[in-house]
Amino acid sequence: MCRWLAYSGSPIKLEELLLKRDHSLIDQSLHSRMGATTTNGDGFGVGWYDGDGEPPRVYRSTHPAWNDRNLNELAAGIKSPLFFAHIRASTGSAIQETNTHPFRYGKWLWMHNGLIRDFNTVHRELVNRIDDALFNSIEGTTDSETMFYLALTFGLQSDPVAAVEEMVGFVEETGHKHDIEQPIQMTIATTDGESIWAFRYSSEGDSRSLWFSTRMDELKLLYPALHQLDDLSDETRVIVSEPLGDLPGAWNAAPESHYGVVHPGTDKLAPFAPSH
Amino acid sequence: MCRWLAYSGSPIKLEELLLKRDHSLIDQSLHSRMGATTTNGDGFGVGWYDGDGEPPRVYRSTHPAWNDRNLNELAAGIKSPLFFAHIRASTGSAIQETNTHPFRYGKWLWMHNGLIRDFNTVHRELVNRIDDALFNSIEGTTDSETMFYLALTFGLQSDPVAAVEEMVGFVEETGHKHDIEQPIQMTIATTDGESIWAFRYSSEGDSRSLWFSTRMDELKLLYPALHQLDDLSDETRVIVSEPLGDLPGAWNAAPESHYGVVHPGTDKLAPFAPSH
Amino acid sequence: MCRWLAYSGSPIKLEELLLKRDHSLIDQSLHSRMGATTTNGDGFGVGWYDGDGEPPRVYRSTHPAWNDRNLNELAAGIKSPLFFAHIRASTGSAIQETNTHPFRYGKWLWMHNGLIRDFNTVHRELVNRIDDALFNSIEGTTDSETMFYLALTFGLQSDPVAAVEEMVGFVEETGHKHDIEQPIQMTIATTDGESIWAFRYSSEGDSRSLWFSTRMDELKLLYPALHQLDDLSDETRVIVSEPLGDLPGAWNAAPESHYGVVHPGTDKLAPFAPSH
Amino acid sequence: MCRWLAYSGSPIKLEELLLKRDHSLIDQSLHSRMGATTTNGDGFGVGWYDGDGEPPRVYRSTHPAWNDRNLNELAAGIKSPLFFAHIRASTGSAIQETNTHPFRYGKWLWMHNGLIRDFNTVHRELVNRIDDALFNSIEGTTDSETMFYLALTFGLQSDPVAAVEEMVGFVEETGHKHDIEQPIQMTIATTDGESIWAFRYSSEGDSRSLWFSTRMDELKLLYPALHQLDDLSDETRVIVSEPLGDLPGAWNAAPESHYGVVHPGTDKLAPFAPSH
Repeated sequence: MCRWLAYSGSPIKLEELLLKRDHSLIDQSLHSRMGATTTNGDGFGVGWYDGDGEPPRVYRSTHPAWNDRNLNELAAGIKSPLFFAHIRASTGSAIQETNTHPFRYGKWLWMHNGLIRDFNTVHRELVNRIDDALFNSIEGTTDSETMFYLALTFGLQSDPVAAVEEMVGFVEETGHKHDIEQPIQMTIATTDGESIWAFRYSSEGDSRSLWFSTRMDELKLLYPALHQLDDLSDETRVIVSEPLGDLPGAWNAAPESHYGVVHPGTDKLAPFAPSH
Repeated sequence: MCRWLAYSGSPIKLEELLLKRDHSLIDQSLHSRMGATTTNGDGFGVGWYDGDGEPPRVYRSTHPAWNDRNLNELAAGIKSPLFFAHIRASTGSAIQETNTHPFRYGKWLWMHNGLIRDFNTVHRELVNRIDDALFNSIEGTTDSETMFYLALTFGLQSDPVAAVEEMVGFVEETGHKHDIEQPIQMTIATTDGESIWAFRYSSEGDSRSLWFSTRMDELKLLYPALHQLDDLSDETRVIVSEPLGDLPGAWNAAPESHYGVVHPGTDKLAPFAPSH
Repeated sequence: MCRWLAYSGSPIKLEELLLKRDHSLIDQSLHSRMGATTTNGDGFGVGWYDGDGEPPRVYRSTHPAWNDRNLNELAAGIKSPLFFAHIRASTGSAIQETNTHPFRYGKWLWMHNGLIRDFNTVHRELVNRIDDALFNSIEGTTDSETMFYLALTFGLQSDPVAAVEEMVGFVEETGHKHDIEQPIQMTIATTDGESIWAFRYSSEGDSRSLWFSTRMDELKLLYPALHQLDDLSDETRVIVSEPLGDLPGAWNAAPESHYGVVHPGTDKLAPFAPSH
Repeated sequence: MCRWLAYSGSPIKLEELLLKRDHSLIDQSLHSRMGATTTNGDGFGVGWYDGDGEPPRVYRSTHPAWNDRNLNELAAGIKSPLFFAHIRASTGSAIQETNTHPFRYGKWLWMHNGLIRDFNTVHRELVNRIDDALFNSIEGTTDSETMFYLALTFGLQSDPVAAVEEMVGFVEETGHKHDIEQPIQMTIATTDGESIWAFRYSSEGDSRSLWFSTRMDELKLLYPALHQLDDLSDETRVIVSEPLGDLPGAWNAAPESHYGVVHPGTDKLAPFAPSH
């Protein structure tokens, strides 16, 4: 099981969420609390936007996040209003940077926790459905990257929710053809640098966890004495596979088969269903 | 341009050919003499057979061969009657172990110097021709590995020469469809652990170099005082992209559009032509 | 906490003990049973003798052992009558090959589980005591390597037990000068390629575990139906920080403050005390 | 031979000097023009200040700079008013991050091209002279890092020129005691985040090259049509081991046995002599 984190809001240093707190993402990589896999030591990645309209930058490594000095340096040196971070526990494919999340295409980032079951059985059929124009951008061999390029094929850049619904529908349909009962298990985050879409779904209706932080304005009312929140804009949000701390009222579990959108103005939480 | 070496004969320590001599393969990686590319610092690989009928073992790394301590240790610790070694200068694809030669499938090894021109244009069509049963064994994104899996699709394991002829024919045909004038440039070595097949070919009829060492019995007659040859069986052969030393009479260039087979009993050199 | 394994006996493939069994060393690296640290993902090393009188070869990597493909290849390709393996959980110093066990000097190997407490406080005084002739061979910054070079300074190569007793005495004395109450905690294995010496000691008298396998002749009597033991010589022994399996009667804990010697002919177990 | 670059002036993206130009530092790493060593493939490092008074951040890797994707990402993502970059060709010590320049201590950075001759002979005596308070900060085994900690011992942080003069004097004196005729060869750059000091010296009076870019105000007068200079402040300077381009009038060689200081206000060029 992988773990991930997505941040949107007032520009902060990456280390604030990756390193500094109890239950920070790096801390989680060593000590799983809710995860099925013991350890997330199979590489990690960080993708961040500068807020200047440029495509995101990505730093990925095959070393465990907890002992990568360069990650510490970068996390202290880089400030960003929107970033993704992911720590990997491989479910089989090679440990190499190109298999490490977040994946990037143009201004989009994508990361995933979960798996496509019996991926070897359906891999080729899934790849065959990817657009010719996208094919050469595939660099690795993971199920997660395949899902990304399928979603791009299905229009991620114009209608993200519809594209992910179609991608999941196609994966399920392909799996069922091969008698795979529960073809997909996922929490996914994707972004174009302005909004973040996060999805929680699994064929078996028992998906891995997905949490949204409470809106900052509400959180500040709840904890007026917590001055580390003062500098954060009301719209600041964190989306995670597992809560980063134990503050009561700070984290809200996304319901089964739902997705959320975080973007300036209004956020949204709505049911998610694959389109068949 | 990459460089490679294939050895067959009396079991020797890998370091004899990889490290110890002037113009050893590692020495070549730092100082090109005949190559187009300055430096082979984009990873390396070694594949070797134990001589016990087991599939070959492969050690591959993304570090430059000249500064990899583990390579030094292994080359001193491993003795083999048949091994391949390859040093890479990337022509574009990612620097990762899965893009590093030699590639392995079952008991077969494959390594390549050269390129498929405009690979991005033909990549998908080439991949589409690969057998379903082989598809999931592809781990990287290089033209070289694609050529290997095409050759396997065309029967490498039963008739290697015919399979490589068909592979090259298919690559040329696919390239020509897209107005690529000279689709392929290659020297290739492949082995099943008993024989080695080495190919020299390019669409433009101006292929990179390929050299076979002179038979040991002849070489011993030529240099009776060279006692380092004493322990080597008469059938010992080295095949290389560039000669390892300057001994007159020791190296024989393969002619343009030819292939050679090295195996116990008789060796063979014959013309090579793609089958269309 | 680190973990390690030392083997002496009939030549076997490294993978037999590193990879193949339940509770193999690699399996332990992911799931600690008796250890204080959750995960041994900070690199690993293997040192082995060919049995030809040559110095040992060492393969060390900063990647987690469980996801290093090259380790799998080597462990399947290398057979040895005497080898060491070590998986690291850093207690602070940098994750780099030169900080990875086993350490080698000439024909000697050394590996350690434990620590010198407040190492920063005593580091320089300890280093100052190392022989001039040895100083330039130090490549890393760990307490473990410092202990090795102190032991070499105190005559490890002529009288290993006396040298380790003097090393531990010197470390304790130096620590006490700086009001460090319990300066050292250790299990150590060292070898010259013929015998293995293993030590269990800590200043607090509560040392990490050390286990010796039961002599093969006794084990065969105990388990006549366990045919995987048939090929192993009577003198075959494994020494480990944690048992590799649950076979009753197969593993014997070394008592507190003891050392054992494994060598052809007679083995030995005796009390250990630092010399002051 | 290593190569390095130091920049001070208007904040720019690192990629401007590391990657984008002909004869950029990365380009130089593959194709030496003035260097003695063919290839700088033994790792690289970048150190940069954010301009907010914080200590510098350092990104170092053992991969060749030319194929490190993360370096590309960072160089495009990080903007800095003062940064160092270094590409390494090892003269013997291990290829590991802790042997990679620039070295950092507090707010100081240090990088070096050259060597201490017969370093193994004088290593220990040099290390013995380093302050106790600094000893535990030494992480690697290079002559370059030893020079840094000696300079720190001699007061680098209060009077950099005097400290480097004393360091060089001490290295020469120690070398001469051991009949090493020409103990040191160096170009060095060091900075506290505000000023940069660059030194050119060798015992043999034939030092490796050191170049200062012409002041921007003069360069703008010389090339009024070169609009890429428009955004750079008049005080912007680049100091390099080898010129980054062929613009006549842009680069000025430092004379033998001289040092230069670049800092807001006045720059300075003055003779350098070791203090004995």
